[in-house]
Amino acid sequence: MLAASRRPNIRLCDHTGLALPIAPALTGRMTHIRLTPLAQSLPATVPFVGPETQERARGSAFEARLGANENVFGPSPQAIRAMAEAPQWMYGDPESHDLRTALAAHHGCTPDHIMVGEGIDGLLSYIVRLMVGPQDAVVTSAGAYPTFNYHVAGFGGTLHAVPYVEDHEDPQSLLAKAAEVDAKLVYLANPDNPMGSHHKGEDIVKAMDDLPATTLLILDEAYVECAPEGTAVPLPADDPRLIRMRTFSKAYGLAGARVGYAIGHPDLIQAFHKVRNHFGMNRAAQAGALAALNDQPYLAQVQQQITQARDQIAQIAQDNGLTPLPSATNFVTIDCGRDGDFAKAVLDGLIAQGIFVRMPFVAPQNRCIRISCGTPAMLQALATALPKALADAKQG
Amino acid sequence: MLAASRRPNIRLCDHTGLALPIAPALTGRMTHIRLTPLAQSLPATVPFVGPETQERARGSAFEARLGANENVFGPSPQAIRAMAEAPQWMYGDPESHDLRTALAAHHGCTPDHIMVGEGIDGLLSYIVRLMVGPQDAVVTSAGAYPTFNYHVAGFGGTLHAVPYVEDHEDPQSLLAKAAEVDAKLVYLANPDNPMGSHHKGEDIVKAMDDLPATTLLILDEAYVECAPEGTAVPLPADDPRLIRMRTFSKAYGLAGARVGYAIGHPDLIQAFHKVRNHFGMNRAAQAGALAALNDQPYLAQVQQQITQARDQIAQIAQDNGLTPLPSATNFVTIDCGRDGDFAKAVLDGLIAQGIFVRMPFVAPQNRCIRISCGTPAMLQALATALPKALADAKQG
Repeated sequence: MLAASRRPNIRLCDHTGLALPIAPALTGRMTHIRLTPLAQSLPATVPFVGPETQERARGSAFEARLGANENVFGPSPQAIRAMAEAPQWMYGDPESHDLRTALAAHHGCTPDHIMVGEGIDGLLSYIVRLMVGPQDAVVTSAGAYPTFNYHVAGFGGTLHAVPYVEDHEDPQSLLAKAAEVDAKLVYLANPDNPMGSHHKGEDIVKAMDDLPATTLLILDEAYVECAPEGTAVPLPADDPRLIRMRTFSKAYGLAGARVGYAIGHPDLIQAFHKVRNHFGMNRAAQAGALAALNDQPYLAQVQQQITQARDQIAQIAQDNGLTPLPSATNFVTIDCGRDGDFAKAVLDGLIAQGIFVRMPFVAPQNRCIRISCGTPAMLQALATALPKALADAKQG
Repeated sequence: MLAASRRPNIRLCDHTGLALPIAPALTGRMTHIRLTPLAQSLPATVPFVGPETQERARGSAFEARLGANENVFGPSPQAIRAMAEAPQWMYGDPESHDLRTALAAHHGCTPDHIMVGEGIDGLLSYIVRLMVGPQDAVVTSAGAYPTFNYHVAGFGGTLHAVPYVEDHEDPQSLLAKAAEVDAKLVYLANPDNPMGSHHKGEDIVKAMDDLPATTLLILDEAYVECAPEGTAVPLPADDPRLIRMRTFSKAYGLAGARVGYAIGHPDLIQAFHKVRNHFGMNRAAQAGALAALNDQPYLAQVQQQITQARDQIAQIAQDNGLTPLPSATNFVTIDCGRDGDFAKAVLDGLIAQGIFVRMPFVAPQNRCIRISCGTPAMLQALATALPKALADAKQG
């Protein structure tokens, strides 16, 4: 009944181009495992290889964890306290009522405009599942968030990608492509990851004049709390043309808790109830996110720390003859000045010295490496490691 | 662009038959929201209404939370400490490597036999998504776990249900039905929820002689740590005929953390990587589950507390002239001796007095109410409330 032979190992591809072997692939010859044709066609890939996987492969921990755009400054102490006090023997409230109510007050809408989910990743999975079936067209930028692409592929959609324009995702070409292919969804991150660039919210609104009436815009504002005033799109919560994604993983410092939320028209928010994992939210995470939201002074302090860290990363880049790109996020993307192979060599040189970083994976953005804001000690480690990584890359 | 009119309210059905209004339904007339035909056909239901929702509806908190089969004795203090110490600014390890390694040692298999996920609910969603497409046949028991049914419906599968036999899920009729309808999946919980009954593991193995070669058995052993020795199915981890579901939500006391795991053949476990939310695990939850697993003496103590609480619930039932059913779980199902309407009246009478309980929802099992193990104080509150609930139900 077991497969007599095995296919070659499937390999995982991460954001940096690293590839790691994983367990042998499903052979499809086990009679009890009748995958759907779609599932059978999917590779067993991951959008990103985690830093822990890399640490296990290299046999030691990273000195500086600057690759996943986590917030090293951490969550509000009030969030930490709320999580510690949450009774974890109880299932979380499946409505996330208290958190949704607080978010509604924060954003000036009603709880019916808010869906709380297991990070933006989880919410993206739900919205793709609701709207995308086999061969349905979806539009994104080449080099934008791979996890969104993973979900589109996972539900059989057809992804159309348009290039960045001057290191920005380009709303005009995204929406033109959406019209051309009759896209059900178009994805736009503002600010952008991995480039750190941003558009003014009012410019997004103007571009949306060209949004086809049959296309929903997913506007991923994961980094918006790190961005200048005016970056968030100034549209009412119930505008039916778009759904906004927000998270507690970045500026709020709760990446490990898995709390994201979507803002949209109540009819669209309501549809999530059809498919979501109703009891999927960690109870302490709900409490932690609520406490973090209620501690806006702490958020303001973190925003200052992020600004300082961005300046410090930019200075380190310039000290090494590299060009830091302007950032509206909690990371700085550094132009290494040559091609993707060179940037990859620099990245490898940093990783070899215990500095976890990632990089864009599509040309010409892959001339860059991406450094998350770190503590002064972590950035000192970066400053120490970068000259050698650069020198080795130039020799390579 | 917004819908000009609204459909009537969709209503939620819970395990008790309670129905609560929620927000108006998606009209399907918003041009930007083009749901898939499958999503359009799905109701916006929840498998269970949470106790918090009921508390908000009634305007006060429950005195005794005995309805969701949570573990009121809570997790190991070591788990609480591990969760408090986990750095929540970091994403969780997407491989759950340390937890999977420990689980493999615990079960005498390899980490490749283990998939950790966001509770059994999350894992059920993934396995259904992998194997069930529109019109694919799936078999379960009428009155068994509604969340499994929700996932089957959510991916377009056709559910076939067989009745309980003497308050037990019946492996023979489940497997006969699977052969009859060419089921891709058959679901069996052992021990069973909501009846608390169980089969010996070796009897499940014998029944599996009739498992069709093209059907995968999902064996939900969520409550197995509360059951007598010999309940867990004595089969090797890589038996390709079944996938086992386990959880930290019940005996380990971590329902709020959302940590479940599946044990199965590596080829099947590998398939989860095709669709799962790779970064979906809460970091503290991973650490808490690992610490809970490593504190087996605490688990043994909880098992004793559960046994005592079951005895106490049985005594309360008998003191009121009702019949407690034998339980291999952390709850006791009480036969109220009449029909479903009567049991529902008893349940309503308990809820009105601040005692949160649930009940089976299919006849003839709906002659019962289901009481989770509680602290002595909670069970004292139950003992106080039950006579009035019964008297009122008899008068009703």
